[in-house]
Amino acid sequence: MWPIKLPIQAAVPKTIAIVGKYQTVGIAQILSDIAVFLETHGHTVVFEAETAANVALDGYDAMTPAQIGQYADLAIVVGGDGTMLGIARQLAPYNVPLIGINQGRLGFITDLPLDGMIPALADMLDGKVEAESRSLLDAKVYRAGEQIFHALAFNDVVVSRGATSGMIELTVEVDGRFMYNQRSDGLIVATPTGSTAYALSSGGPILHPSLHGIVLVPIAPHSLSNRPITLSDSCEIVIQVVNGREMSANFDMQSLTSLSHGDRIVIRRSAHKVTFLHPHGWSYFDTLRRKLHWNEYPSVEGRLQ
Amino acid sequence: MWPIKLPIQAAVPKTIAIVGKYQTVGIAQILSDIAVFLETHGHTVVFEAETAANVALDGYDAMTPAQIGQYADLAIVVGGDGTMLGIARQLAPYNVPLIGINQGRLGFITDLPLDGMIPALADMLDGKVEAESRSLLDAKVYRAGEQIFHALAFNDVVVSRGATSGMIELTVEVDGRFMYNQRSDGLIVATPTGSTAYALSSGGPILHPSLHGIVLVPIAPHSLSNRPITLSDSCEIVIQVVNGREMSANFDMQSLTSLSHGDRIVIRRSAHKVTFLHPHGWSYFDTLRRKLHWNEYPSVEGRLQ
Amino acid sequence: MWPIKLPIQAAVPKTIAIVGKYQTVGIAQILSDIAVFLETHGHTVVFEAETAANVALDGYDAMTPAQIGQYADLAIVVGGDGTMLGIARQLAPYNVPLIGINQGRLGFITDLPLDGMIPALADMLDGKVEAESRSLLDAKVYRAGEQIFHALAFNDVVVSRGATSGMIELTVEVDGRFMYNQRSDGLIVATPTGSTAYALSSGGPILHPSLHGIVLVPIAPHSLSNRPITLSDSCEIVIQVVNGREMSANFDMQSLTSLSHGDRIVIRRSAHKVTFLHPHGWSYFDTLRRKLHWNEYPSVEGRLQ
Amino acid sequence: MWPIKLPIQAAVPKTIAIVGKYQTVGIAQILSDIAVFLETHGHTVVFEAETAANVALDGYDAMTPAQIGQYADLAIVVGGDGTMLGIARQLAPYNVPLIGINQGRLGFITDLPLDGMIPALADMLDGKVEAESRSLLDAKVYRAGEQIFHALAFNDVVVSRGATSGMIELTVEVDGRFMYNQRSDGLIVATPTGSTAYALSSGGPILHPSLHGIVLVPIAPHSLSNRPITLSDSCEIVIQVVNGREMSANFDMQSLTSLSHGDRIVIRRSAHKVTFLHPHGWSYFDTLRRKLHWNEYPSVEGRLQ
Repeated sequence: MWPIKLPIQAAVPKTIAIVGKYQTVGIAQILSDIAVFLETHGHTVVFEAETAANVALDGYDAMTPAQIGQYADLAIVVGGDGTMLGIARQLAPYNVPLIGINQGRLGFITDLPLDGMIPALADMLDGKVEAESRSLLDAKVYRAGEQIFHALAFNDVVVSRGATSGMIELTVEVDGRFMYNQRSDGLIVATPTGSTAYALSSGGPILHPSLHGIVLVPIAPHSLSNRPITLSDSCEIVIQVVNGREMSANFDMQSLTSLSHGDRIVIRRSAHKVTFLHPHGWSYFDTLRRKLHWNEYPSVEGRLQ
Repeated sequence: MWPIKLPIQAAVPKTIAIVGKYQTVGIAQILSDIAVFLETHGHTVVFEAETAANVALDGYDAMTPAQIGQYADLAIVVGGDGTMLGIARQLAPYNVPLIGINQGRLGFITDLPLDGMIPALADMLDGKVEAESRSLLDAKVYRAGEQIFHALAFNDVVVSRGATSGMIELTVEVDGRFMYNQRSDGLIVATPTGSTAYALSSGGPILHPSLHGIVLVPIAPHSLSNRPITLSDSCEIVIQVVNGREMSANFDMQSLTSLSHGDRIVIRRSAHKVTFLHPHGWSYFDTLRRKLHWNEYPSVEGRLQ
Repeated sequence: MWPIKLPIQAAVPKTIAIVGKYQTVGIAQILSDIAVFLETHGHTVVFEAETAANVALDGYDAMTPAQIGQYADLAIVVGGDGTMLGIARQLAPYNVPLIGINQGRLGFITDLPLDGMIPALADMLDGKVEAESRSLLDAKVYRAGEQIFHALAFNDVVVSRGATSGMIELTVEVDGRFMYNQRSDGLIVATPTGSTAYALSSGGPILHPSLHGIVLVPIAPHSLSNRPITLSDSCEIVIQVVNGREMSANFDMQSLTSLSHGDRIVIRRSAHKVTFLHPHGWSYFDTLRRKLHWNEYPSVEGRLQ
Repeated sequence: MWPIKLPIQAAVPKTIAIVGKYQTVGIAQILSDIAVFLETHGHTVVFEAETAANVALDGYDAMTPAQIGQYADLAIVVGGDGTMLGIARQLAPYNVPLIGINQGRLGFITDLPLDGMIPALADMLDGKVEAESRSLLDAKVYRAGEQIFHALAFNDVVVSRGATSGMIELTVEVDGRFMYNQRSDGLIVATPTGSTAYALSSGGPILHPSLHGIVLVPIAPHSLSNRPITLSDSCEIVIQVVNGREMSANFDMQSLTSLSHGDRIVIRRSAHKVTFLHPHGWSYFDTLRRKLHWNEYPSVEGRLQ
């Protein structure tokens, strides 16, 4: 038993959950390989319930995310960043660290390649890890004073117009102070994790995961001087919908609620944090460079001048 | 004597320094009005040495910035944001709070209008203030292992190419980890205060003053995916000049050093902070809206659609 | 009868259509004032049919837009830029010049203020005009080889994702050559007129109306180097929808069609042009400066450095 | 003899100039290979004078650029985009088409790889070419009414501040109409060719070479709404220097003049055009995609949502 779940202590038997929700070709074999490896090294293996239903491996317990949160010391997730975000949000209240194995190109938070995953896992279970803590947003939607929706978001809370309606108008308050009235296609409120997702495509800055910040990125703002603003993540951000049609708020693009005039979305940093474990030597900047092609220059001569 | 210089305690006599370096028309009268008002209310007035030399008001002691730092409880600065930054950097080691009075349009940090300044000052000396703490950067330049330059910066450290030379190439490390190689016109490392200055013009995000952050904004980067990145201000940032001609580093555009290949600029948050006092009800967001015209929409119909 | 409808020849009686679709307070009086003024000066006044139905002024003929196109020498439009775009698109095949009178803040193409409109109109009917020709886009949507939609657009053709679905993937060809595969929230294809509308909010450049150009502006593109590109307006642009859900194409945000995988949107410059008449001394750049606040600097000191 | 120098007519002996100014390793052999190939096929080979002085190949005439302009039917340039621009500017008055062979990574306008250049040249001399015409800027600097500088620019005319001075203030007029007052680090006036160079790094749009356009891109403008504007290339653009220190204007970063207050830079499209010949099947968009990494997506899942 770990008194503190982190750092991983080498040579201590653990309860480890395996998650691999998508039914891609060969997923059963991959999950089985991981399970066998873990059992061989004395760990107790459980499968996330939906995963278990899909791959049907005998001899392992199935657990809901809540049970995993309660009993497991570690979760190993096979899939893309989206899968990782989904399960991480569910495990957020329980402080279970996660390791992400990516079947395709490496993601921002799933950085163990399938190829060579077993020796990599062996090293990580030996304690050779870089632990990294990521914050979440806690968002509540109020209508006429009543809370009508509640969600956690790893990446972002996005308030936006309908696809075929005109601009929306929002009022934003920060810690009770009026910040601005904004007319735009919408507003993205992103964590450092989300800063490299939709917010980046919309012109936002990158926030390093160690920054205690939240960034507000307007989507196609009417006022050209309406630039992204990075706030401290101890702020409370309230977005009120003033005008628009078919508006909605989505949370990590994984849950959604429609909005009416006067609705207030109250956003705070969640009390929970999620710990991702990376292989030793992992570097956030390496990931950035690889994903954003920072090293690949257009030409040897530099730009044409 | 104040055991703690902040908050301002009403009805306690203080030593107050007056700074107004520029010889604009009417400055002597303005400074005199302030001095008379302060003395009438029992405070001890001193003049910053250069200011005293310019305006020649009899009967007041003149002090160097270091003396002001040591003896004064408060500095009142008449001028623009540039004047304010200059004196604030000199007072940074001493924790003397500053009030800024702006002769022209209000600045980001000089927010008391000349018109009505006396009643405003009266209120502020009565304790009706919003105190706001701003961080500085501490930058050291090393050549072949030797420190050759040292400066504080309120806004930014800017490493850039010569006006008529091609791109420079920089290597940036953060806390000892390689971040990127960058080819560009230069790199801006800005505090939250500096985020609304040159960094903003160059495409950077706004950082709220309460954010413990530093933003790196590339100037005309060769790689189009090279976006601004906001780091925690507990980071150490090292910029090494790899290639280029006529390169230089400047600090708040107020001090400057030329750079050679291999020079390393080591940037940390300074141990000092500076406190600005604003009138009661002051709001950072109000200033932003006013300066960036966030409320002035192009037309009543919104954009043309 | 004008052999060529432009330039307006002074002292020649004309058939002039009045358009003022919106039922805002006082609109009837405004339209009546214009009609009386025109009749007094020997012109024949007709009302656009929908306008006539709304304001019910006796003694004037009502005409459909097509009839206006056929019989009128000039149309005077009271309303915002949106009203103007709507009627201008309908009149595009007939080469009837338009004058726009704006009830609120002046628009990009409705630049005659309500206040003082009569003397301004008198001058313009005297030939003191700046005539300006604007191009339109002609867009056809094909599904499985069949044309399923056809529309003209003054501002832009926008292909975009559903409000609550993920990115779409588009393939763009120009004059039969593959340009790129794009993953994004959508793509804006804009005329110079549209370049100051949605395209500008999405990061596009301004195109001067005299430029024979079309600009493609990606909306929140996945690839950060995917910048706006300005093409010659003699190009044929074909957008094929490769991937996505709930996709649609809209035309000036005034007509709309949903899209399926494989649909091809073929965009060319329309054979029609529309002529807007501006008061003498009118300047496109003045409008830009006023709408975009180019003259209003954040502070007298310039940025904080 | 060609009555019209373009298109290249197969099987007609030509006078072909070879240019390869840089003394890189192996350049003599490359130029010799090209010369031998051309002579074998009946063409007359001449060497650009500076090239001849560097590589010292016997038996060929050396010509100045002006002589090449007068006598040659074609110029083959070995080098990068910078070399190409330099010679192309000198040949601009003479309408000699150019082929560019790139020793390193392919450039925007030097698109024949060294590897396999001989068969590629054989095909091109057989008439299998894509001819593409590029415009230049003609820029004159006036001081107190006197012309003090004149230059052609392929890419751009850049007016900018000194490296260590503050912002400059410029007034821009287009066809005699006031466009704006701009405070910034400078202003880039770019051709379509230059739109993928410095202008792109500074936030400008791409202009397709077939567009008759010129783009104005502000460098770090003080006003955040000061966006790039694309004008027709039939415009006359006048930039007047109002304020600033150590200002200069450079032309393709290859020639330079310092500027004083009141200097006027008058920019028009040059009467000359330059023709680049590309191998059959060449596509501008292919080059863009390759240089800007448009096809390389950050991850298979798309952005993190």
